[in-house]
Amino acid sequence: GDARAGRQKITTCQACHGLDGLSKNPEAPNLAGQIEGYLVKALAEYKSGARKNETMNIVAKDLSDHDMFDIAAYYSSIQVDVLPP
Amino acid sequence: GDARAGRQKITTCQACHGLDGLSKNPEAPNLAGQIEGYLVKALAEYKSGARKNETMNIVAKDLSDHDMFDIAAYYSSIQVDVLPP
Repeated sequence: GDARAGRQKITTCQACHGLDGLSKNPEAPNLAGQIEGYLVKALAEYKSGARKNETMNIVAKDLSDHDMFDIAAYYSSIQVDVLPP
Repeated sequence: GDARAGRQKITTCQACHGLDGLSKNPEAPNLAGQIEGYLVKALAEYKSGARKNETMNIVAKDLSDHDMFDIAAYYSSIQVDVLPP
């Protein structure tokens, strides 16, 4: 997917997943730097209903495959660093 | 959960989710710094079968609730930094 195009499609996502992909909502996961293929699979499963979540089943309903690839590309493009313990 | 106890229970997880929680496997998500409640919910759904994944349904079968809380506490305790774009 195209991360730049994805950047334009995540306004809705930011409400729960945060401006930078670090979640604002204890039920919503962090998305920053997540694995692209995993994000695509999760979105597709929320759209098909294979994965159940009230909010995400609604949000994903309006996403095309193309949107999903772009959104996944955007979030996985965010650089994250793991700080040593 | 107890992150230190969780640390002792993640040897199996590391094979796919990496030593530091950054995934080694395109199908496995990063877990480092993930939201604790989200991880508990995901593990419980993999155990109940509400969430389908061949590997995770097997892995989660042997986890007690206590294990899940500790493992979730461990991964969410890993500090991550989002680097500005």
